[in-house]
Amino acid sequence: MPTIQDIAKLAGVSAATVSRAINSSGYVSAAAREKVNEAIKELNYAPNKNAQYLRTGATKNLGIVSTQFNETVLSRINPFIDEAYSAGYTTTLFITNGEKKREREAFDLLKSKQLDGIFLIYRANDWHTLESYADYGPIVTLHNVASRRIPSVFIDHYKGMRLALEYAWDIGCRRLLNVYGTPEGLNTQRRLDAYRDFHLEKGHSPYSSEPFFHIGSDESIDRLIQWIASQKEKPDVITTHSDTAAALIVSRLRRSDIDVPNTTAVIGFDNLPISDMMNMTTVDYGIEDQGRNACRLLLHHLKDESKPLIPLSFKLIKRGTTK
Amino acid sequence: MPTIQDIAKLAGVSAATVSRAINSSGYVSAAAREKVNEAIKELNYAPNKNAQYLRTGATKNLGIVSTQFNETVLSRINPFIDEAYSAGYTTTLFITNGEKKREREAFDLLKSKQLDGIFLIYRANDWHTLESYADYGPIVTLHNVASRRIPSVFIDHYKGMRLALEYAWDIGCRRLLNVYGTPEGLNTQRRLDAYRDFHLEKGHSPYSSEPFFHIGSDESIDRLIQWIASQKEKPDVITTHSDTAAALIVSRLRRSDIDVPNTTAVIGFDNLPISDMMNMTTVDYGIEDQGRNACRLLLHHLKDESKPLIPLSFKLIKRGTTK
Repeated sequence: MPTIQDIAKLAGVSAATVSRAINSSGYVSAAAREKVNEAIKELNYAPNKNAQYLRTGATKNLGIVSTQFNETVLSRINPFIDEAYSAGYTTTLFITNGEKKREREAFDLLKSKQLDGIFLIYRANDWHTLESYADYGPIVTLHNVASRRIPSVFIDHYKGMRLALEYAWDIGCRRLLNVYGTPEGLNTQRRLDAYRDFHLEKGHSPYSSEPFFHIGSDESIDRLIQWIASQKEKPDVITTHSDTAAALIVSRLRRSDIDVPNTTAVIGFDNLPISDMMNMTTVDYGIEDQGRNACRLLLHHLKDESKPLIPLSFKLIKRGTTK
Repeated sequence: MPTIQDIAKLAGVSAATVSRAINSSGYVSAAAREKVNEAIKELNYAPNKNAQYLRTGATKNLGIVSTQFNETVLSRINPFIDEAYSAGYTTTLFITNGEKKREREAFDLLKSKQLDGIFLIYRANDWHTLESYADYGPIVTLHNVASRRIPSVFIDHYKGMRLALEYAWDIGCRRLLNVYGTPEGLNTQRRLDAYRDFHLEKGHSPYSSEPFFHIGSDESIDRLIQWIASQKEKPDVITTHSDTAAALIVSRLRRSDIDVPNTTAVIGFDNLPISDMMNMTTVDYGIEDQGRNACRLLLHHLKDESKPLIPLSFKLIKRGTTK
């Protein structure tokens, strides 16, 4: 790897002149600049970016932090990376597997200036712990967190959930089963609210009083399907919090010879590519634009030029897993 | 952000002592070290990693470069990130959208020491261009590239393709249609070889003499399905190069009222989660272990301690898209 001294020697100028030419600071004559550029080209020299970053205090690198990395996350990451690249930023990905220490290590990179900002997708630590990192760089999330320090590209799942329930009702479903992710999640709370309010307004009894939490893994869905198979009066629709959970539910219902949609309809959430492939009814809200917005929001805080946020809204996509 | 001077002031020692304590270089008395550590804690100081990296010439950061970022890529990235994390490395993701310049920008980070190594998944530039970067850090790929400078976690698709064709033959298929990705890809060449050799050995005429290349996007598969719908003698099996392509083919055949598997069977490739959800027959070769191996191979070259490579082999997974 050639050094500034090597370039100075080849160009026949002082190292200080090379440094001024490379860093565009101070006067360098046109003739000297040309000689330096030729030497740089000949020696295939690239400035050590870590030295530049040390000087400017910015790394032009954004982090995405998530406990896991699945298709739902993927749909947000692609537009995020694209948006970051347009603004001259790279993107580093951190998968924490839900380990608190591993998540804090990623956030520590804000302190050590290796990250300029973080988009937090699924978290492991509590909000209080994560909030303290906002001293060192902007953090953006998609959760409805009551924090003035962590802005969000959050969309209220209450409305999306109501949309799915109203549609199921309109096509004649009366035994509506809703399944959920983590009970602590604020989206889960809003979905529980929507389910309760919907039944109150209709003056109709909920199909099951026990909510099904933590639905997502193979095992959780196997348990759900076993429970459904054992019920005399099966749910005539299952509304879900994610397309990946819904896809697995459809696949496992069919494997258990429970007819989808004739015995039990299924409605997904997120409108991921898999819902199209499996011809699955789902709720769309522009998940890709949500990823794009997350990046724009970080750039707003980094005082870079940035585009306005894209408005998000819910839309029901009717496909073959509802009658 | 506190500086070394701030710590020195609070600890009542010289800046040089603080520097020696932080960098574990040179003598520092136990009493001074304790005072420094207390000051670091009180001031919430984190050393600027870019300064450390400047000193050591390593960034402990690996890059993954790909033209696109889909479920197939996802299956390799997760184990890669996991393996990298165990060895103390972070992972930065570069999606190039097939733009040559954007890919070269990612590779330039090897020169500027922001990346220690690169795992190249789908490339935009020719091998000759990319090979020149191996001067600056190890590059690993999964393609069968004839380069001694770029090692590979390549698995020969010929064998996997033969496995799919033999199985289709055994269950009575005689009109075998194979579809491909990019014609320039070396995997495609091996798949064409397998298709030709198979038919020669069986003494059987290929179903179609025109190979279907570039199968993957919605549009390409719409064209394929239209062509199939227009054929009097439809293929009784479609063998593919990827589960994502196969999933879209199954979905679109069914939408066109072509019965899968009774009219046309479909065999995927990669054994991704989607093949399980869609109950799709596919070819497995340990795609996750391939991602893990890519990281281990980079670590071997970086002279870090690293685990041995995991052997990969093909296995047919029989599911519901074949009779």
